Amino acid sequence: MKQKLSIVKIGGNLIEDAQGFKHVLDLFSKMDGNKILVHGGGRKATELANQLGIESKMVNGRRITNAETLDIALMIYGGLVSKKIVAQLQALGTDAIGMSGADADAIRAHKRPKKNVDFGYVGDVDVVNTYGILKLLQAGFTPIFCALTHDGKGQMLNTNADTIAAELAIAMSDQFETTLYYCFEKKGVLQDINDENSVIQHIDSKGYDELLAYGIIADGMLPKMHNCFYALRNEVSKVCVGNTNMLEANNSDYTTLTL
Amino acid sequence: MKQKLSIVKIGGNLIEDAQGFKHVLDLFSKMDGNKILVHGGGRKATELANQLGIESKMVNGRRITNAETLDIALMIYGGLVSKKIVAQLQALGTDAIGMSGADADAIRAHKRPKKNVDFGYVGDVDVVNTYGILKLLQAGFTPIFCALTHDGKGQMLNTNADTIAAELAIAMSDQFETTLYYCFEKKGVLQDINDENSVIQHIDSKGYDELLAYGIIADGMLPKMHNCFYALRNEVSKVCVGNTNMLEANNSDYTTLTL
Repeated sequence: MKQKLSIVKIGGNLIEDAQGFKHVLDLFSKMDGNKILVHGGGRKATELANQLGIESKMVNGRRITNAETLDIALMIYGGLVSKKIVAQLQALGTDAIGMSGADADAIRAHKRPKKNVDFGYVGDVDVVNTYGILKLLQAGFTPIFCALTHDGKGQMLNTNADTIAAELAIAMSDQFETTLYYCFEKKGVLQDINDENSVIQHIDSKGYDELLAYGIIADGMLPKMHNCFYALRNEVSKVCVGNTNMLEANNSDYTTLTL
Repeated sequence: MKQKLSIVKIGGNLIEDAQGFKHVLDLFSKMDGNKILVHGGGRKATELANQLGIESKMVNGRRITNAETLDIALMIYGGLVSKKIVAQLQALGTDAIGMSGADADAIRAHKRPKKNVDFGYVGDVDVVNTYGILKLLQAGFTPIFCALTHDGKGQMLNTNADTIAAELAIAMSDQFETTLYYCFEKKGVLQDINDENSVIQHIDSKGYDELLAYGIIADGMLPKMHNCFYALRNEVSKVCVGNTNMLEANNSDYTTLTL
């Protein structure tokens, strides 16, 4: 039987709320078994860019990454946020190592080809080095990934944290029975977006198609759900969507997705 | 017989010189056996502080680290510089992992007590987690350390890179025959500071005392030499001081220090 692995993705904005930040890391540190954390950078990157007078260009919700904004991503995601998470987890007894895709050659990507939009230094994932990550897990470490990859030729690249979480979960599913947790603001996928208590407990492929058809899943949830089912169709056992409380051992008030 | 371990400390300013940066990482990647790189952050931290209107206070050549300048150290040392080094080393075939003292709980420190000067978030090293570092080396990884430690209670701290290199070398000497390389601008310790070709090839404790007495070693070299002999008196086999060319296999034009 395969060992279990939990991959938890948290938003970067959590880091700005000192209490919420401690809460989620406390819950993460208490999770049993093999685990990996993936974090975004949140508003801090935009804030620093503004302070430095660097314009943050967004197209379809994705940041355009020129050399200057890549440096900001290295500073905020790879430095400030990563090290604060690692120090906090160590204090909670979790032997964390902060990583980008370059560290341990964990995630290689290629610069997204120019089509209509030149996204700049944005990486689309080519390969996850499961062997390297496995060595770290087996040595008892807990990898903490930020939203950065590399191209194997010396260039760092910016890669969406949701994508990194999905690609890690898919790659590690060869070795592990993998559950992917996407933490966001809501308690789960809601039947009625205005009612926080209308969490849909379980969605499978058929239910997903229906929810899409009825327009229940729309806007910001679309790419998130797309990532979830992409992971499930590629051997990830289970995807959970909800707020950080879903990491609590006895909580089941969130959305579970399976094929 | 103990295995060999090389610990190489490079200055942060090397990173600003694209050619010198590639050169030193190329030499480092070609070094045989177990190795660890330690890097400073250089002028980039001061530059960013200036851009953000944060005053960089220095006392006796040491930066005073308030909460804002600690964040800058996390961004520049732990993020920008570390990830650029790691990506470059990966391209050169070295399986690098960028680390602070918090990652893998590698280096614990305590906040320096206030005496005449309050250095702020500056850490004096308490303990190096040789077991954690050994696990990484045995798994085939090359740790890349920046000038950051943690207190084990969730607080990151700023620690001088020369000190980190010395403390790592001392701690790892239980397991390894350790050589510590301090790279700086000069070819070595010079008999005549104005003559780059007056490198003193070898200095032992007795010679060191004489050089001190004659005032050959003074000013900026004093703390560096102090670190070197501190390491030697604590079981480090050999300390080498010179410019980055000393990492070349066949070069012997630098200063070697032994007890």
